[in-house]
Amino acid sequence: MKNYLIALAAASTAGGALAQSSLTLFGVVDAAVTYTKGSGNGSAHKTQLTNSGNMFSRLGFRGTEDLGGGYSANFWLEMGLQNDSGTGFPSNSNNQASGNGTAGVLSFNRRSTVSLAGPFGELRLGRDYVPAFWNTAIFDPFGTGGGIGANQIYFSGLGGLVAPTGTRASNSIGYLLPASLGGFYGQVMYAMGENDSNSVLPGTRVSNEHDGDHTGARFGYQSGGLNIALATGRTRYASGDLRVTNLGASYTFDASLMNLKLTSELYKESKGSTDAKGALIGLQLPIGPGEIKASYARYRLEPVGATLKPTSSKLAIGYVHNLSKRTALYATIARISNSNGASQALSGAITAPNRASSGTEFGMRHMF
Amino acid sequence: MKNYLIALAAASTAGGALAQSSLTLFGVVDAAVTYTKGSGNGSAHKTQLTNSGNMFSRLGFRGTEDLGGGYSANFWLEMGLQNDSGTGFPSNSNNQASGNGTAGVLSFNRRSTVSLAGPFGELRLGRDYVPAFWNTAIFDPFGTGGGIGANQIYFSGLGGLVAPTGTRASNSIGYLLPASLGGFYGQVMYAMGENDSNSVLPGTRVSNEHDGDHTGARFGYQSGGLNIALATGRTRYASGDLRVTNLGASYTFDASLMNLKLTSELYKESKGSTDAKGALIGLQLPIGPGEIKASYARYRLEPVGATLKPTSSKLAIGYVHNLSKRTALYATIARISNSNGASQALSGAITAPNRASSGTEFGMRHMF
Amino acid sequence: MKNYLIALAAASTAGGALAQSSLTLFGVVDAAVTYTKGSGNGSAHKTQLTNSGNMFSRLGFRGTEDLGGGYSANFWLEMGLQNDSGTGFPSNSNNQASGNGTAGVLSFNRRSTVSLAGPFGELRLGRDYVPAFWNTAIFDPFGTGGGIGANQIYFSGLGGLVAPTGTRASNSIGYLLPASLGGFYGQVMYAMGENDSNSVLPGTRVSNEHDGDHTGARFGYQSGGLNIALATGRTRYASGDLRVTNLGASYTFDASLMNLKLTSELYKESKGSTDAKGALIGLQLPIGPGEIKASYARYRLEPVGATLKPTSSKLAIGYVHNLSKRTALYATIARISNSNGASQALSGAITAPNRASSGTEFGMRHMF
Repeated sequence: MKNYLIALAAASTAGGALAQSSLTLFGVVDAAVTYTKGSGNGSAHKTQLTNSGNMFSRLGFRGTEDLGGGYSANFWLEMGLQNDSGTGFPSNSNNQASGNGTAGVLSFNRRSTVSLAGPFGELRLGRDYVPAFWNTAIFDPFGTGGGIGANQIYFSGLGGLVAPTGTRASNSIGYLLPASLGGFYGQVMYAMGENDSNSVLPGTRVSNEHDGDHTGARFGYQSGGLNIALATGRTRYASGDLRVTNLGASYTFDASLMNLKLTSELYKESKGSTDAKGALIGLQLPIGPGEIKASYARYRLEPVGATLKPTSSKLAIGYVHNLSKRTALYATIARISNSNGASQALSGAITAPNRASSGTEFGMRHMF
Repeated sequence: MKNYLIALAAASTAGGALAQSSLTLFGVVDAAVTYTKGSGNGSAHKTQLTNSGNMFSRLGFRGTEDLGGGYSANFWLEMGLQNDSGTGFPSNSNNQASGNGTAGVLSFNRRSTVSLAGPFGELRLGRDYVPAFWNTAIFDPFGTGGGIGANQIYFSGLGGLVAPTGTRASNSIGYLLPASLGGFYGQVMYAMGENDSNSVLPGTRVSNEHDGDHTGARFGYQSGGLNIALATGRTRYASGDLRVTNLGASYTFDASLMNLKLTSELYKESKGSTDAKGALIGLQLPIGPGEIKASYARYRLEPVGATLKPTSSKLAIGYVHNLSKRTALYATIARISNSNGASQALSGAITAPNRASSGTEFGMRHMF
Repeated sequence: MKNYLIALAAASTAGGALAQSSLTLFGVVDAAVTYTKGSGNGSAHKTQLTNSGNMFSRLGFRGTEDLGGGYSANFWLEMGLQNDSGTGFPSNSNNQASGNGTAGVLSFNRRSTVSLAGPFGELRLGRDYVPAFWNTAIFDPFGTGGGIGANQIYFSGLGGLVAPTGTRASNSIGYLLPASLGGFYGQVMYAMGENDSNSVLPGTRVSNEHDGDHTGARFGYQSGGLNIALATGRTRYASGDLRVTNLGASYTFDASLMNLKLTSELYKESKGSTDAKGALIGLQLPIGPGEIKASYARYRLEPVGATLKPTSSKLAIGYVHNLSKRTALYATIARISNSNGASQALSGAITAPNRASSGTEFGMRHMF
């Protein structure tokens, strides 16, 4: 994302040497007209103006101060926007359901960090993405946008993506490897639920002191057209830990194969003793100023002792037409199929168990 | 409103050709000391620090990207401010009362849009003003500010201005005519309530699938000193649609008549089968670096079968002293009279039926 | 605090003469890992990522317009940040508990003002710091940050600091003396609770029309190494007024005494007929690029007719290592002791009556 620099150099703050210091205002405003429908008894359809079909809408402030010797101080404050209605997204204060904010309020829910970077890597404090989120975002051709293209079927199961720590964690300490490791990259995170040492589950004597404590790591390798990464995360809850592990890989062919990019992800999550598994394959194909995208994903819930394992699969096909590097028009069609009692539907629709849900969206995304 | 450009040209984003691209931070901070009182049994007076007496306080971010060929991509994010207490205004997510946000929170309630503009006009997506609002704002010398001058007697009747879609609508698709039509201008809007197809009024089988769907249009002509516009809007509710229609006109005389501007508006609204009618006349007279403003308005509620039609009228007189193009001091006096059982009062006061309410405000407005 | 100017001169707004006009985006992001513990029955410890240990985290927009002749128009919008979780702080709309906003929402709670400044001083409207707050902030080596160093033992008594008007007041009219008075400085404030004239305490006929009305003043003298100031404030409540009076003084020695700075404050507050008293002494000692800070404070509650006067004392020692003018690393240790039934604890800990609480924090603060 290319952004405006509010001041190219903070020359006034500490002499002319800080040539790399900058303060940047940036954002995305993305809106689409979306129609989704279900099928079967009690199904419902809806037409909406939605946000974030191509990229999540946001407004942010970030800055870098060059401290010399390869060191820098950095901050990043980024809020999510529901620009169809001018509202935002609440953050979560303690990585537990009790810390959820009020729906629709503005907050720097997407990222709120201060960090010290240098030859050693980066030490980052605040609210940030959990390591295990990145594979689900990066190896899905549709990212994890709010639109119908992104692989939302992971969202409705055990909560690996929608739990308080599914995407981001508050109260985190993160360490990221430096960029100069010959293609190897990686990060670890520890985040705190911040319950005090006396804390117990309501009405019990069961300690939940460590509820909301999150540990995560991600390591990968990128070279030439290849990118591959393994990530895992665990959030402690007295009611049963939430664990997510995934492996993502992509390969971008050269011009002789039209710069085609293939992506894939294997995904596993568990909440207490219940497991779920997912997988995704995708492609991205540049066509002139545009790009064709497609993905196919499956998600299967595996309740303990259940004879049926509810399974959903999703196919999404999209085209993005770039009007400039910052602005694009896009169209997406998607379909979710269900079996073994599953009833996942595209956002806005309701579908009966074992029945399908489908939808279409047309939108515009603008970055600044 | 004159604003600061954060970057005059986004030369770095797509080459030097995008000379018109810009990102702008803008706002208004307006505060006044206001005294209002009522009369009769149970009446009350209040002294307050109020906001927005001259212009609504706000903070916004907007930008334009020149796409070439007369086309541009645009975004606009603007929040209302209650700067007397540092709070804001919630937005509404679904054009229905159920979508109202929490009082006082910040949101981009005033406008939150992304748009594509070109020779064809402008296609705009998001939260925006409804077409029928503009005549009430533009043809009132006091605008629709939060102060005692603006024509708030429309606000307390059927809700044409304070309903979720009275001023703005979320989830809207708007089309605006291009500027090059020889003085003719116009816009249409369709906004969605976004209820799903199964939705019913609570406890009934009455479908309210279309509650909050809004359709509006405004067309006008401006040439020389003349400006005239007709607008209408309809918001669907299973409990009875809300309809607003108004006609506004103004004429600005030349220097031989001291650049006097006369304004007027006729206003009609209905909620279900109840009607209400309003009218306003006003004047604006430049005096050196300042301006004298005055308005007289009437509003009559017409309940079905009622023998009495509650009627309120309002007189407001103000003076605005410009310290610069961006900063002004102002003073306003206003009086509301009631008859046929009406009991409208200036904000902060309580008045008995058929009794008057009056008030005074002194304030300062600063734009940036 | 050194900030980026978004535009050094608003030359476009009113000709080249407005050389001093500016619009500034500024902020602080400060995070620390903090461990606090208590002692005795029922005590609890906690490890947290905290914000604002060195300076309160914030994001702000402010601007000045040069009006000529020594006059200027100014605005200041500043929100507090809980950057450990990306949330904020609510404001208060009426200087009474009933006007508290929802926990965690963003607002311009720290300051939201518009003002006219000139040779006469400054007239300021909006939400601003109450005069009596400043001595507690300025004469504490740790300021009144959210960390364990600042003198929070004043916070838990009668509420002189945490009441709606403890730190700031909404709906205020402030006047500040000009800077050119030979070292004398001062300010007065009147802020309104904005109850209407009919308002009564719930379930009674006792008028609370003036609840939340605040009157405050502060006058001081600064010359050479000396700074001394006296301040007082009164907030009216039908249930008993809240009064705060304090006297602060500091002296900064010259290089022959290593630029050592000594600070002190005497503090008295009362709520209705209950009194409380506090005192603080502190020091700040520059050491190369860093600074050592220490403070000792006492606070005694004096309930009417009580034989025991709950007393807490606090010792804090810190070191701040400046990486640049904008960025610092810091470490603090602190201990609160209690007697006569008091049980104050460092934030996050719980301690038994008459027992101690202690803690440690390590953090990073970045200004922009």
